[in-house]
Amino acid sequence: MIELPTEIKNAVNSFSKLPGIGEKSAFRLVMSLLKWNQKELEVFSKSILDMNDIKYCKSCSMFSDGDACSICLDESRKGLKTLCVVESASDLMAIERGNEYRGQYQILGGVLNPLLGIGPEQINLERLKLKVQTENIETVILALNPSVEGDATCSYIKQMLPINVSVERIGFGIPIGGSLEFLDTQTISKALENRKSF
Amino acid sequence: MIELPTEIKNAVNSFSKLPGIGEKSAFRLVMSLLKWNQKELEVFSKSILDMNDIKYCKSCSMFSDGDACSICLDESRKGLKTLCVVESASDLMAIERGNEYRGQYQILGGVLNPLLGIGPEQINLERLKLKVQTENIETVILALNPSVEGDATCSYIKQMLPINVSVERIGFGIPIGGSLEFLDTQTISKALENRKSF
Repeated sequence: MIELPTEIKNAVNSFSKLPGIGEKSAFRLVMSLLKWNQKELEVFSKSILDMNDIKYCKSCSMFSDGDACSICLDESRKGLKTLCVVESASDLMAIERGNEYRGQYQILGGVLNPLLGIGPEQINLERLKLKVQTENIETVILALNPSVEGDATCSYIKQMLPINVSVERIGFGIPIGGSLEFLDTQTISKALENRKSF
Repeated sequence: MIELPTEIKNAVNSFSKLPGIGEKSAFRLVMSLLKWNQKELEVFSKSILDMNDIKYCKSCSMFSDGDACSICLDESRKGLKTLCVVESASDLMAIERGNEYRGQYQILGGVLNPLLGIGPEQINLERLKLKVQTENIETVILALNPSVEGDATCSYIKQMLPINVSVERIGFGIPIGGSLEFLDTQTISKALENRKSF
């Protein structure tokens, strides 16, 4: 076997840490980097270092240029007294793409997972509780992904919040464009459970 | 739509330039970087910048710590008077993994492709010609991948080299473990063409 230069080994190591990228794909990516010029490599290298400087909204934990993000600064969104709880910034952005929901958000930054040592203190549950109180939230929409951990986190939030707050879970069922033929049994059973009068 | 911080946009841009990574995958990778600590980001960032410092063997163009790589320095490999021509360092490494071929190598760094402006001057053909002369190479094995451009490059090399050099192309056919049922017609037709007395 041929010994690779340390530079390449280090780069392969770093790329392999990314999700969905194994050692072989990492090597392929590194090989392609060898064709980049110095300027491009510098830009890439700096963009990674810059990940350190990303600021987050002190209220909802979304990326933000200042202490508060544009959504939290939007007074019209506060009027709705509705708070949507999501797991991550990507989930928030997926909902915002729909351009339908006009309330506020709270990013948890994860879901409860005792096996990985993620308890209530590791995710933004205290901040959620405080926000519901200070902003007089009337409706909390739990938009956590369906999984054992997501469901457990929803139950935890439900019992943590004051009883007069209406806690709702997003709907589960057949996705639009989906086909019963190819869907798993759990989704179909949820869809049957969640049927509505037509 | 939510406006993303410039840092994230830049990182997504850089990642999207990698082969097989579109904007969506790039965004997913960048999101995962947000969970890395400063030390890990610095290591990753530096490893990319270090791609600039990779040295290549002056003879075969393989990665190398000095002016010549370990293969070119190996005197026993010179004795064979055999030179294997490959497209890239990854191809060389694939052959070396087999631990069977014991001759020398020449990496071309590409194949002739007039549509992309890659002519004989853009790939290491001059160096190949010189090496065949100075090292008294008797056999040249063309281990270029089968494609229109690869085949054209092989023809070009054949007519470029002295007539007393034996020029051979690696064999094409059914890969070991492959199944006729799932192989394309071109491979099967090559396999029939390349049949051997049994």
